[in-house]
Amino acid sequence: MRLSRYFMPVLKETPSEAQIASHRLMLRAGLIRQASAGIYSWLPMGYKVLRRLEQIVHEEQQKANHHPMLMPTIQSADLWRESGRYDDYGQEMLRITDRHDRDMLYGPTNEELITDIFRREVGSYKQLPLTLYHIQWKFRDEIRPRFGVMRGREFLMKDGYNFDLTKEDALHAYNRHMVTYLKTYERMGLQAIPMRADGGPIGGDYTHEFLVLADTGESEVFYDSAVTDLTLGDRVVDYDSVAECQAIMEEFTTPYARTDETHDEAIFAEVPEERRRSARGIEVGQIFYFGTKYSDALNATVQTPDGTNVPVHMGSHGIGVSRLVGALIEANHDENGIIWPEGVAPFPVAIVNLKQGGADTDRVCDELYGALTAAGLDPLYDDREERAGAKFATMDLIGCPWRITVGPRGLKEGKVELTSRRTGESEEMSPEAAIARLKELLANR
Amino acid sequence: MRLSRYFMPVLKETPSEAQIASHRLMLRAGLIRQASAGIYSWLPMGYKVLRRLEQIVHEEQQKANHHPMLMPTIQSADLWRESGRYDDYGQEMLRITDRHDRDMLYGPTNEELITDIFRREVGSYKQLPLTLYHIQWKFRDEIRPRFGVMRGREFLMKDGYNFDLTKEDALHAYNRHMVTYLKTYERMGLQAIPMRADGGPIGGDYTHEFLVLADTGESEVFYDSAVTDLTLGDRVVDYDSVAECQAIMEEFTTPYARTDETHDEAIFAEVPEERRRSARGIEVGQIFYFGTKYSDALNATVQTPDGTNVPVHMGSHGIGVSRLVGALIEANHDENGIIWPEGVAPFPVAIVNLKQGGADTDRVCDELYGALTAAGLDPLYDDREERAGAKFATMDLIGCPWRITVGPRGLKEGKVELTSRRTGESEEMSPEAAIARLKELLANR
Repeated sequence: MRLSRYFMPVLKETPSEAQIASHRLMLRAGLIRQASAGIYSWLPMGYKVLRRLEQIVHEEQQKANHHPMLMPTIQSADLWRESGRYDDYGQEMLRITDRHDRDMLYGPTNEELITDIFRREVGSYKQLPLTLYHIQWKFRDEIRPRFGVMRGREFLMKDGYNFDLTKEDALHAYNRHMVTYLKTYERMGLQAIPMRADGGPIGGDYTHEFLVLADTGESEVFYDSAVTDLTLGDRVVDYDSVAECQAIMEEFTTPYARTDETHDEAIFAEVPEERRRSARGIEVGQIFYFGTKYSDALNATVQTPDGTNVPVHMGSHGIGVSRLVGALIEANHDENGIIWPEGVAPFPVAIVNLKQGGADTDRVCDELYGALTAAGLDPLYDDREERAGAKFATMDLIGCPWRITVGPRGLKEGKVELTSRRTGESEEMSPEAAIARLKELLANR
Repeated sequence: MRLSRYFMPVLKETPSEAQIASHRLMLRAGLIRQASAGIYSWLPMGYKVLRRLEQIVHEEQQKANHHPMLMPTIQSADLWRESGRYDDYGQEMLRITDRHDRDMLYGPTNEELITDIFRREVGSYKQLPLTLYHIQWKFRDEIRPRFGVMRGREFLMKDGYNFDLTKEDALHAYNRHMVTYLKTYERMGLQAIPMRADGGPIGGDYTHEFLVLADTGESEVFYDSAVTDLTLGDRVVDYDSVAECQAIMEEFTTPYARTDETHDEAIFAEVPEERRRSARGIEVGQIFYFGTKYSDALNATVQTPDGTNVPVHMGSHGIGVSRLVGALIEANHDENGIIWPEGVAPFPVAIVNLKQGGADTDRVCDELYGALTAAGLDPLYDDREERAGAKFATMDLIGCPWRITVGPRGLKEGKVELTSRRTGESEEMSPEAAIARLKELLANR
């Protein structure tokens, strides 16, 4: 993308309404603008990040044979009355009356609707196991929305639902979801620690939250530092293998890691003192197994091999997609701006022309732009007529992982400069070498 | 995808509530289920089609340097009061009161919100031209929703907005949108004819609707049959070229083509009689140039080169993405089911195993499935234990363009059967030849 043709309204001043870094930086870098309290428009570069996160979520879910679908935002109140949750939700639920005076609502979650689809369409154990998910906008009418997309009212969430014949099968689905989530966050360049959590209004005895450590996190967390050494890395997981998913679940949940809601000082005291940590965390996902809570309430049964009808075992599993953009920035920024992990950067590489209008600099920039575009590396080319300082400040603010600087002085020796946003380290090399290096650096993107 | 693991609940009976073919077939093929009146859940296969349409829209918009973004579904009423449209919209607008008693609404369109973003962020002619678009769910509280996704209440629309310094520039944006829309529909396998239309509540002197001819269309249309001979084909368009976009606009709008709202018998009479047609059409898109209607109301100005401030010239441009799924089926079906055009089929090829559990048939099907998957052709493999007749009926219903049938009789001679859903013609060949043929047939997908 040529910046001269893009819509990326960056701000020099820090917006006074923003209290935390991600909110400030999302406004300053032109990722979002507030439409009304707790409701945001995603400008082109913000939308690009959001889509990229969506894409990663889709890919990892589908590897586990979870099927994407899409439920609507507006639901009838009837199903929520049937489950008994219409009153439970209180004022956080956005309630709507349509022109025929029917009670509707903007879905904050979808257990009822998906269970209704299931009970109407599935009757036999032969159609199990089944996991359906969607990525859809939700609404929670927060009394005091704040922190930008971290606690907004309209937010994008992936929510998935597993349907299984037995508790044992459903716990495999639970473990499978845990593994897909760990993979998902790792691909985004985030460490999200699964922590034993509280069921809350969804319910469920088995539930883990995934927390990203950050000073601005809303939760206090306690953990064994051994948990932060764990990664899945390049492991290829067979999601049909009960043993493999369970082993990974155990690997990641054996070290102590809990939020303040479930924290137990006595157990924590058994962790060797030098490994005991307390910190703050941002919740970016949660998984639940809640058994037959909704299938009992909504009468969602399947026939077993011996012909009896039993309520289906269920779980639900969520990733806060729009909130993740904020969490990513909280975990990846410095005083100059965002430092995108390579897997989620809106543009992995920026080209900065220090002499716009110069025959040589323009030519080399155009060549770099063409070659990087052809290689699928989606460069952002700062082709504005601005002084170098302003261009560098903008690039630091928006946080592309790599920057190629093209100036007349370097070009005299046939060199451009390749700079890492994260380390700040620069290296001079020929344009061809820079292209080759970037292809290598971004091969896994 | 292996059908035994997929969620594709097909119906044998025709649902009584569905009055038109697309609604019937979308329910029968398991693409959608009604969640409440005029509101649908998109099941996995329906969602796959929807995503594919979205993808085509995105690609064609971005070729013209139109920038994707995303505005929220819930808007404040304030901007609509400022433009004067809060009252105009009447009961079709879904009005909502939040917990703080603020008037909100579920956006039926976004002229106000995008103009507000523009006026806050853009101040100079130097930042023009600019076209922003999004693909987002909208809500219109239809008094009598019907025809499935063709006249639903919650629907997915692409809406784009151009901002230009002058009327002349804005008319180039108008023409550019017309060309991108023609390209978009062609890639979907649809002929959508641009017809001179009426401004309606959006306003505007320049407006064309795009109509797909179908007996169940809601509009009566009148046209010169010469217009149906026009195609863009493989033409590569330079969207920066004013002349080229204008020439294509003139090519496609010179033959008479109007809806009943703008039909003029006197002009129509000048069309040679043998080319005069009247038919019914489904509206799948509309483009508008409305000048400074919203920029005047919302005070969205830009500074010109000579330093004066002028209201920006605007247009808005919509494609009914969810409705297109219905329109595609109306235009592509027979008594047995859907006949997807190759560009939009959820699965371009199906593999039917006539003897599930047979060593040879299973092996060949697995090989075909592996090879087609590796080639990116996304096959659907009917690996259910069902009799041949039931498998063929399901495949005809869901309408994959190509079917490979693998049976023990053919395999004795090393042959499988390749069948076109559209023509019904079959040809026997080796599995390798079938793979090679499909790669060729689906090369442009």
